Amino acid sequence: MNRTLSIETVTKIGEEVLLKGWINARRNMGKIVFLDLRDRGGIVQLVGVSSQMDAESVERMKDVRHEWVVEVTGVVQERGEKQKNSNVPTGNVEVLIKELRVLSMAEPLPIDLEDDKVGLDIHLDHLPITLRAERWQDVFKVQETIIQSFREALAQEQFTEFQSPALVGGDAEGGSAVFKVDYFYNQKAYLATSPQLYKQIMTGVFERVFTTAKIFRAEKSATTRHLSEIVQMDFEMGFINDQYDVMAMLEKVIKHIVARVVEKHASVFAKRGVPLPLSGEKFPIFKLHEAQDILGAPHSDDLDPEQERAICEWAKKEKNSDFVFITHFPTKARAWYTYEEPSEAPLSRGFDLLFRGLEINSGAQRVHSYETLVEKIKSRGLDPEKFSFYLEAFKYGMPPHGGCSTGLERITARMLEIPNVKEAVLFPRDLNRIDLQLSPPENKQ
Amino acid sequence: MNRTLSIETVTKIGEEVLLKGWINARRNMGKIVFLDLRDRGGIVQLVGVSSQMDAESVERMKDVRHEWVVEVTGVVQERGEKQKNSNVPTGNVEVLIKELRVLSMAEPLPIDLEDDKVGLDIHLDHLPITLRAERWQDVFKVQETIIQSFREALAQEQFTEFQSPALVGGDAEGGSAVFKVDYFYNQKAYLATSPQLYKQIMTGVFERVFTTAKIFRAEKSATTRHLSEIVQMDFEMGFINDQYDVMAMLEKVIKHIVARVVEKHASVFAKRGVPLPLSGEKFPIFKLHEAQDILGAPHSDDLDPEQERAICEWAKKEKNSDFVFITHFPTKARAWYTYEEPSEAPLSRGFDLLFRGLEINSGAQRVHSYETLVEKIKSRGLDPEKFSFYLEAFKYGMPPHGGCSTGLERITARMLEIPNVKEAVLFPRDLNRIDLQLSPPENKQ
Repeated sequence: MNRTLSIETVTKIGEEVLLKGWINARRNMGKIVFLDLRDRGGIVQLVGVSSQMDAESVERMKDVRHEWVVEVTGVVQERGEKQKNSNVPTGNVEVLIKELRVLSMAEPLPIDLEDDKVGLDIHLDHLPITLRAERWQDVFKVQETIIQSFREALAQEQFTEFQSPALVGGDAEGGSAVFKVDYFYNQKAYLATSPQLYKQIMTGVFERVFTTAKIFRAEKSATTRHLSEIVQMDFEMGFINDQYDVMAMLEKVIKHIVARVVEKHASVFAKRGVPLPLSGEKFPIFKLHEAQDILGAPHSDDLDPEQERAICEWAKKEKNSDFVFITHFPTKARAWYTYEEPSEAPLSRGFDLLFRGLEINSGAQRVHSYETLVEKIKSRGLDPEKFSFYLEAFKYGMPPHGGCSTGLERITARMLEIPNVKEAVLFPRDLNRIDLQLSPPENKQ
Repeated sequence: MNRTLSIETVTKIGEEVLLKGWINARRNMGKIVFLDLRDRGGIVQLVGVSSQMDAESVERMKDVRHEWVVEVTGVVQERGEKQKNSNVPTGNVEVLIKELRVLSMAEPLPIDLEDDKVGLDIHLDHLPITLRAERWQDVFKVQETIIQSFREALAQEQFTEFQSPALVGGDAEGGSAVFKVDYFYNQKAYLATSPQLYKQIMTGVFERVFTTAKIFRAEKSATTRHLSEIVQMDFEMGFINDQYDVMAMLEKVIKHIVARVVEKHASVFAKRGVPLPLSGEKFPIFKLHEAQDILGAPHSDDLDPEQERAICEWAKKEKNSDFVFITHFPTKARAWYTYEEPSEAPLSRGFDLLFRGLEINSGAQRVHSYETLVEKIKSRGLDPEKFSFYLEAFKYGMPPHGGCSTGLERITARMLEIPNVKEAVLFPRDLNRIDLQLSPPENKQ
């Protein structure tokens, strides 16, 4: 007999089916045992009555507990009216067990998977099992939709996907702390902190490119925002007029992501009591100083976290948008490859996209002139010689271009209003943990 | 005026258009200059006649050379019958230039981009420009189709995409050489050599999962097969009967990839003189010893490279398939998590998929019993304590499952019959190179 998924039972009333999955719950009700069976289609209720089963199945039934893996033959039946549960997709049916076989046993669980008050460290210590709980599965199904719809939106706009390297020869951007790798011949390599330089090179090849690359940050800091390993979703496009072309493309991509997430996962938001993301008519765009004027804040080189939250609240109330663009940051406050706004120097063509109070994307038009780029590198005290590979693209003709970058974990967290970004990564790496807790010397004393 | 892409000119005869792109070639023919303009849509011929242009454009026209980035306003016209070139998609038209503006200049190229006899090192030294040549763009457009259709095929089969970590706490598989990373608190982390253990954990969560993850191999060897950084395309599925369920899924995925590649890139194969991949009616399946019998070779624990080639030739001739499955390798010759075939021990439920003479995929049914797995780990001299995180999934109920893994670079290379896998990676990392040539101490003496 072919396997039936739990969700498919609703169309098979009266039929004999073969189900396979995990025991998600067990309820003993006198002579009847109710089991919830979990598979990739969801959950369905099984009913065990000794008189309906063969002797071996009756014995096995006594043993099965949470997370045992079983195979069940049974008959789908409609529940009595009073037993129907409209909150569950399979709430109208149950499966009367005829035969039950055990595929894998499970030890008694060390924690209650349904308990959503479990602390973060306990959750992370037991990821291989806590991730099985529906509320965790939900987070990573939403994350899957985000990354897949990011790619989908850009493919529709003729962007070419490329694979950006993780091992790099130097800390090219000269920015955030970088992990060192023991490479061959006693040389050091580094883990990429961004696919930036490669996506610019690739813009010289395919004009429009994107990549979903792993990047690594060795910042010694233990906040709710910090991760050592991140999935970054980047695109870069050539032949733009200015940063507004990049922002228009980004808005299109984000709206596509939001539409897909809402279409597929509205029930997840309902369950968690989180409002659906609002993308309004058009994302509001403010110059940095305009945003500060609205907030009655003094002019400065960046928004502080409190201001980021306040301008997002304003945009939500006034423009029905959870997203806000901020432009015209000072050039000196942005990466060295940022294009300066000729008529408004020292302001730049960089921008940030805020989402529910937090920056989730940063982008800009980039410098495309070889000579200007060499000057910019020198002006930050960096050595152009170290950038010779990257600079070759510019020596031989680069179009005006720009792009931007979104952290997959951060947008997932903001989407579901998860306060700690570590809960939006399957296997978070940070200062204290690579799956197992590290025992830093500091803690041992 | 909106930009027109080169390929769109064929539907705009008689219209004025705005084109943007790179100069791909320049031919002076007396008073007329022909320019090939390259953009993401392909190549179109521009015609420059001084009397048709403004004075400034005439001056600029004198300067423009290969890889200059320009913006051109002109009128699309049909070519004379004798000038038509049916080998080029835009071969029926040309664009008479009215205005030409320069967006970026380029220095004279250090190498001839059209020269396909350039050595590998020269190519790699100049990747930011050599990748712009059509024959290189072709390789990476095919590669994009391979990875995207891998994901597409598995999404259709209800597999969940997940992000597997690159930083790991130990050399978990105990196999190939591993790169060390300086992590926090003077501790070492490692770069993942495979997403294997994580995709098994995730099979306990979502039943069917896939990932396209970066993996890293520190093997000190400089063959045409070796890379330090690889994109691995993995899937894993629960509730299988045996390895044949995994092989059937893999065959479906590969056939989808082949169909998409042929549909989108048949012209690339034609240009390169490479036959389209044959996927036959059904991929032939041989037990290892059966394959050796067919070849008249003595029985041994694996096929050698010559035998891999020979059995593929046999399959192509007899079964019209460039793909062949080999099964029933000895358990001791496979990874420790491989399931042993109970009735045929010491043979295992592992398999390889060969494609045009080379193994491109390796897979198996895996051990799913906690106790057996702990024994297997010990039997290879490894310490189960180091696997406690992974083993937690098994302690609490894992279904029978299996999966497999394909290197993106290797399948790309075999697809296009590229002899050296380094030519199927945009930015290959190996013993001697991370973009720039390393200068290993050995070479300095």
